[in-house]
Amino acid sequence: MVFQVDLNSDMGESFGAYTIGCDSDVIKQVTSANIACGWHAGDPQVLDNSIAMAKERGVAIGAHPGYPDLLGFGRRNLNVTQDEEYVYVLYQLGAFFAFAKKHGMEIQHLKAHGAMYNMAGKDIRLAIAICKAVKDFDPQIILLGLAGSKLIEAAKEIGLRSASEVFADRAYEEDGSLVDRAKPGAMVNDEDLCISRVVRMVKEGKVEAITGKDIAVKTDSICVHGDGPQALAFTTRIREALTTKGVRLVNFGSFVE
Amino acid sequence: MVFQVDLNSDMGESFGAYTIGCDSDVIKQVTSANIACGWHAGDPQVLDNSIAMAKERGVAIGAHPGYPDLLGFGRRNLNVTQDEEYVYVLYQLGAFFAFAKKHGMEIQHLKAHGAMYNMAGKDIRLAIAICKAVKDFDPQIILLGLAGSKLIEAAKEIGLRSASEVFADRAYEEDGSLVDRAKPGAMVNDEDLCISRVVRMVKEGKVEAITGKDIAVKTDSICVHGDGPQALAFTTRIREALTTKGVRLVNFGSFVE
Amino acid sequence: MVFQVDLNSDMGESFGAYTIGCDSDVIKQVTSANIACGWHAGDPQVLDNSIAMAKERGVAIGAHPGYPDLLGFGRRNLNVTQDEEYVYVLYQLGAFFAFAKKHGMEIQHLKAHGAMYNMAGKDIRLAIAICKAVKDFDPQIILLGLAGSKLIEAAKEIGLRSASEVFADRAYEEDGSLVDRAKPGAMVNDEDLCISRVVRMVKEGKVEAITGKDIAVKTDSICVHGDGPQALAFTTRIREALTTKGVRLVNFGSFVE
Amino acid sequence: MVFQVDLNSDMGESFGAYTIGCDSDVIKQVTSANIACGWHAGDPQVLDNSIAMAKERGVAIGAHPGYPDLLGFGRRNLNVTQDEEYVYVLYQLGAFFAFAKKHGMEIQHLKAHGAMYNMAGKDIRLAIAICKAVKDFDPQIILLGLAGSKLIEAAKEIGLRSASEVFADRAYEEDGSLVDRAKPGAMVNDEDLCISRVVRMVKEGKVEAITGKDIAVKTDSICVHGDGPQALAFTTRIREALTTKGVRLVNFGSFVE
Repeated sequence: MVFQVDLNSDMGESFGAYTIGCDSDVIKQVTSANIACGWHAGDPQVLDNSIAMAKERGVAIGAHPGYPDLLGFGRRNLNVTQDEEYVYVLYQLGAFFAFAKKHGMEIQHLKAHGAMYNMAGKDIRLAIAICKAVKDFDPQIILLGLAGSKLIEAAKEIGLRSASEVFADRAYEEDGSLVDRAKPGAMVNDEDLCISRVVRMVKEGKVEAITGKDIAVKTDSICVHGDGPQALAFTTRIREALTTKGVRLVNFGSFVE
Repeated sequence: MVFQVDLNSDMGESFGAYTIGCDSDVIKQVTSANIACGWHAGDPQVLDNSIAMAKERGVAIGAHPGYPDLLGFGRRNLNVTQDEEYVYVLYQLGAFFAFAKKHGMEIQHLKAHGAMYNMAGKDIRLAIAICKAVKDFDPQIILLGLAGSKLIEAAKEIGLRSASEVFADRAYEEDGSLVDRAKPGAMVNDEDLCISRVVRMVKEGKVEAITGKDIAVKTDSICVHGDGPQALAFTTRIREALTTKGVRLVNFGSFVE
Repeated sequence: MVFQVDLNSDMGESFGAYTIGCDSDVIKQVTSANIACGWHAGDPQVLDNSIAMAKERGVAIGAHPGYPDLLGFGRRNLNVTQDEEYVYVLYQLGAFFAFAKKHGMEIQHLKAHGAMYNMAGKDIRLAIAICKAVKDFDPQIILLGLAGSKLIEAAKEIGLRSASEVFADRAYEEDGSLVDRAKPGAMVNDEDLCISRVVRMVKEGKVEAITGKDIAVKTDSICVHGDGPQALAFTTRIREALTTKGVRLVNFGSFVE
Repeated sequence: MVFQVDLNSDMGESFGAYTIGCDSDVIKQVTSANIACGWHAGDPQVLDNSIAMAKERGVAIGAHPGYPDLLGFGRRNLNVTQDEEYVYVLYQLGAFFAFAKKHGMEIQHLKAHGAMYNMAGKDIRLAIAICKAVKDFDPQIILLGLAGSKLIEAAKEIGLRSASEVFADRAYEEDGSLVDRAKPGAMVNDEDLCISRVVRMVKEGKVEAITGKDIAVKTDSICVHGDGPQALAFTTRIREALTTKGVRLVNFGSFVE
């Protein structure tokens, strides 16, 4: 049996004179890049450069839209309507497309950012709005969302392909949702444990929930971070562990159905 | 011989809770609509509604990008680089495309707004940046620009079709440029004179410059305004005069080469 | 016994090329003006002009800060921290102060706008942040908030004077809160009833809750609207009814303790 | 004879999730800090923290307003009117004041940022607008501007104290203006030469212009940069050279008249 998984990371979140993230290092680690579209972060020049960088490294690209809250980096819940959610995603997806087209790149996926991701993960109406915007624009684009969340459910309902992502350093509830960060035990701090959990999620499709019970978790992609040397080193360890265990690292566009 | 001309107007410049312009009236008068893309004015919902409105009335649509200066409505010169100009246009054009696609509408043209229009009209480097962004995105899109300006020159250089627009109420210098608004005589205040000038520009391709000398002026489209009852009434008069003189009012996408 | 009450309205919410509200009419009706500070609405020139207008009519002024959400006009809940709330209010209050100082006007009050008002009305931590910002800046400024809300509670806790406002056209729950707009009966649509309720609130300090039970409601100010001819006519009726019943209309800065 | 000079640097230009500059190092080097006010850079929390940091180190503070162009970091010329310039400065100065007041700090000065600084340095109308805003707000605030520029001229005309600043690494024209960066020789690249020039400007009030001729240059403050290790090391060298030559480093508020 062949095991394969994608590694995705957020990129292109610099803005004007401001630089954030270690994009030129991260791009060497991942198979899919989520690139900011200029609302919660990013700007047209950053967008242009980020897609060029992904193309050069053979990394698949996805639009990474967020809320119009640059001051909060799109991380703060904003009480938008379903219609607003739809047009916000469509607008950013179109802008992203223009740069992908310029570089002759296909859009593999769309992944909502921050509060947009979290809110839609729990609210089917917002999740539907996102999926509908994607499908109306191009039904070949894959929705990347939290495994087991409303985003994945909405993609199925709308008739859009989806890729389920997992987190190496987060604990899971029995229902497959992430343990709230405010709760004790929400973060898995032991790196060795993180890595063995990731390998098991990929090879067995299972993870031990915070209650101790094993649960199923669909694992098309692992979300990794590139915001510093520690994050990059951890990603390197994940890559090595997976490769050693015979897992092929490849963008999910090549295998999700 | 068949005479035909387009009437174009800016639209879709409302923003959030703010309404500006009389779009539902203007859309009945024009054959081409320049729709704001969310930077100098407009927002994703307004963009969506404006394209829907144009589609319903059979009016051709164009992207109307501007500078990132909502506070100044994109009317203030901003000292951007050629690269910035290029990506600003590409970004807004992509966003515009997403909504055109949703409504199954073709993008007929792109017309820069305010300071972006004025600056590029005189600066070939900025004009080239705009035309290059349009061509890279879709070489079928027509550039709408001031007759005789650098915008039209750049379109030719880049290999993009262009449409030349004239103004009914503005005086012209001998070189075909508009008389600076700060100069006496810059505005033609007599409505009857405006109308006879417009008819002549369309039928003869000539206008009397401020010096008294006749000059040639290419007239594919007439720019009209919809920001109040007076502007709407004046547009009605222009339409009637042209029709009476046997001029067919039709979007320029059907005749420019 | 002397009866007196204030009439307050939001103003100064135009932005750049965009005009909203009928400020020059409203200013003739009210005794206190809440003037936007450039975040959810308003801009420095509008702020300047609005304070000048209030000064000319002898209307007391207050800062009207909101969330950094121009696209949503500050009406959408934004999940800010207590620290963010504090600095957002302090920043806008300082900007407001500069223009008040220019015109030689005292700042009578501060009233939070839209989502900031609604959220703090129910969340004591946000209400405390607002009141603390006001007190740190100038302890003479009065907090204007919904009668019976957390805003009024926070002002007392912080040691700030407060003014309680009521709404003519809204139904009340037994606990003094406004009936949620989504519920039937939330709005009082009969104008005569609205007016008799207002007069009673001012003269008796009582209103009939949606359950039919009479409840106490502190009434220092009545919030009125100026967003159209109908709103203006209704305010005129309220003014006339109050005056006829011997109620003096005066800004609350002259009587709250 | 006593020689004294101020060292000033821009600070507080981080924004939301974005960090820029090495403020905690720079604050140890300078005697005056120019702190961004949230338009071209900075945000209310950064403003709060920056003033706290300056207070802790005993560094004098000044408002550092800029154009509403976060994307361009306030570095791009924007064609504002004199009235716009005035209200933009007044607004930002008021916001700055609120945080200075919170920390019990006096505002020593105001220095315009980037394009606002450059444009007003050459345009007396814009310079007057800035100085008028400062004087209307608080006539005790000192204007910090380029030595010999229109900013200093305007301060005199308005009746505002001013401090003249020089640059260690820039060449000067015979008229005292900075050599345009586009011209050869605009930058003085030899660090030893920079330092000897600075010492001479402070002690003799003279500098050799690019033409070879000695010119007078008023030197109340030296502008230094804190955007990296190299800039910080250079500032350390300047400090040491000045101290060794018997020059006292002290904020200009203590000596300008």
